Amino acid sequence: MSEPFAFRLLARDDGARRGEIATPHGPVATPAFMAVGTQATVKGLTPEAVRAGGADIVLANTYHLMLRPGAERIAALGGLHTFMNWPRAILTDSGGFQVMSLSELRKVEDKGVTFRSHVDGAMVELTPERAIEVQSLLGADIAMQLDECLKLPATPGELERAMRLSLAWAERSKRAFEGVPKGRALFGIVQGGDDASLRQASARALTAIGFDGYAIGGLAVGEPQAVMLRIIEEVAPVLPAGRPRYLMGVGTPEDLIAAVARGIDMFDCVLPTRNGRHGLAFTRFGPINLKNARHAEDPRPLDEASGCPAARDYSRAYLHHLVRVNEMLGAIVLSTVNLAYYQELMAGMRTAISGGTFADYCAAARAGWERGDIAAL
Amino acid sequence: MSEPFAFRLLARDDGARRGEIATPHGPVATPAFMAVGTQATVKGLTPEAVRAGGADIVLANTYHLMLRPGAERIAALGGLHTFMNWPRAILTDSGGFQVMSLSELRKVEDKGVTFRSHVDGAMVELTPERAIEVQSLLGADIAMQLDECLKLPATPGELERAMRLSLAWAERSKRAFEGVPKGRALFGIVQGGDDASLRQASARALTAIGFDGYAIGGLAVGEPQAVMLRIIEEVAPVLPAGRPRYLMGVGTPEDLIAAVARGIDMFDCVLPTRNGRHGLAFTRFGPINLKNARHAEDPRPLDEASGCPAARDYSRAYLHHLVRVNEMLGAIVLSTVNLAYYQELMAGMRTAISGGTFADYCAAARAGWERGDIAAL
Repeated sequence: MSEPFAFRLLARDDGARRGEIATPHGPVATPAFMAVGTQATVKGLTPEAVRAGGADIVLANTYHLMLRPGAERIAALGGLHTFMNWPRAILTDSGGFQVMSLSELRKVEDKGVTFRSHVDGAMVELTPERAIEVQSLLGADIAMQLDECLKLPATPGELERAMRLSLAWAERSKRAFEGVPKGRALFGIVQGGDDASLRQASARALTAIGFDGYAIGGLAVGEPQAVMLRIIEEVAPVLPAGRPRYLMGVGTPEDLIAAVARGIDMFDCVLPTRNGRHGLAFTRFGPINLKNARHAEDPRPLDEASGCPAARDYSRAYLHHLVRVNEMLGAIVLSTVNLAYYQELMAGMRTAISGGTFADYCAAARAGWERGDIAAL
Repeated sequence: MSEPFAFRLLARDDGARRGEIATPHGPVATPAFMAVGTQATVKGLTPEAVRAGGADIVLANTYHLMLRPGAERIAALGGLHTFMNWPRAILTDSGGFQVMSLSELRKVEDKGVTFRSHVDGAMVELTPERAIEVQSLLGADIAMQLDECLKLPATPGELERAMRLSLAWAERSKRAFEGVPKGRALFGIVQGGDDASLRQASARALTAIGFDGYAIGGLAVGEPQAVMLRIIEEVAPVLPAGRPRYLMGVGTPEDLIAAVARGIDMFDCVLPTRNGRHGLAFTRFGPINLKNARHAEDPRPLDEASGCPAARDYSRAYLHHLVRVNEMLGAIVLSTVNLAYYQELMAGMRTAISGGTFADYCAAARAGWERGDIAAL
């Protein structure tokens, strides 16, 4: 199963791409959704359950793991795959996004970013080189360059400064990555906010440096979906067709379909697990809020036709009860159901792209969401 | 699999008994440990995981379920087995113990107990007849009579009063149970605190009324283990040999072995799941507190020779990390490991009783606990 990183494009259907990524920890069918395992665990699920849900790859957060339990400790314990008992592929982010969103005190300089740990208050330095070192210690199959991710709206001057800084860090990341064991991959990150020319300049410069894959960062940070989709349309044509494209931190089922249509190959998002912990189920017929009292006496499962046993085996009334009394099993079942729905959606898109029926598949998925949930009689 | 309730004694080894209970929802090998599913879920585990851990039967709490979501609602949804997706046997308690321990305001009278619900503050009446009705609506394979359980120490007068009241309620429970569908079972509960003559009088009177099984209640409420064992020794000979004996709310692994040696057939206890949620693992070599910093770099699993994958698949260092950062997976894995250890212990006792080697088995188990956990090198 262990192969050096590689990407094969298997089929195209209009803008959508069907592919396969080889990694040292097994293949990843694309378009792929990566469940988020922030602290070396996809919240509420055993690794077996994550895999049974259809996942080829999970994402782990460098920021959290470097603070606790520490990258050197995980390396001493055999690396992140062994540590979290997940034998398949892992992508790690660079830590930059969490530094910006979780640390109250931080200082961005050319050499890197210094921040106060939210765990113990210690000052920590994260440079492009240290971000690569940490991800290498974790043993990530796919590592991300350190970048600076701004919240939108931001001034044109700020957007350009952050994009240039991210480019400089991209070059240093690429050099630092030369010391990492062969077969693993490094992705660059396109920045530039909502400015098309900055975004395209970023994409061109990153392509000139040369990465194994390209991410679009700095989206899903509060902007309207239309802005996000416009930026994808402006950036995708500039990226090399033979490398995977990863839209970071996205999104809703509708976001996934719209982005795949525009040539995106990879996604990660906390929505399926976070919403699952808060009583919300994603289904073929749109979201269902199990907290709602209308489910209290409803004997129907969430979706009797789902491929996921958890969506078939429990009544809505039972899930309502579990959510209402705050039992762990509610979060477990709904996180399982949601990840399975996301994976079913990705698998459906992959099959449709191969068969040249992607537009039909998307129309059918949207028709289901629009039909919405039907209340019990 | 559906059989009317029956108990067969298969083997004896000194005081220990090996048997099998038939129920409408499958057989229960005894001595049996019942995992506690207070709110219609064994905390943190899917029903599949509970069964995979070796459980034939679980316990559910009448008090909690009658308040939320309500017994009538569960009945309308097809009963508790369907509701919680657990196709095997269920025993429900009568609600009496939780009324005493959870309700700040309560009034015990001859007719029953009135209490203020901890959920919504409403005043609720629980009589022996209503306790049977609720358990019948839930569809319990084994129901328990309503009793009054005192905390120890208590005065002789109080103990006798509560014992006599529990006996009167036992008679009314028996009569009320005549209306319940055939095949299900009703157990009486021996009370009398730490007074041998009261306990024996209770056991004799209950036997005269005639129940499908007999529980010893009012223990594991703070008294020393020696007191509990002495009472079992005083009560067991008075109970009919052909009926199962259930020691309520017990206990530690050492308690289980000591009570089985004295003729107990059934147990329930929250320890494996509650301690699992608090970072404690039960193992062949005694309890292991995963919160302890000495595990932070320990790559060994909890028990590489365990029959439970969860005890073999995760390092102590990883479990320490999960517990420390308060991730759900820590509680899930440790609850799974603990229930599996309890079930392995019961299965080991059953095999030993059949083979006439119960004393050896207990000595070996105790030697393991005494050896204790060995620290990493």
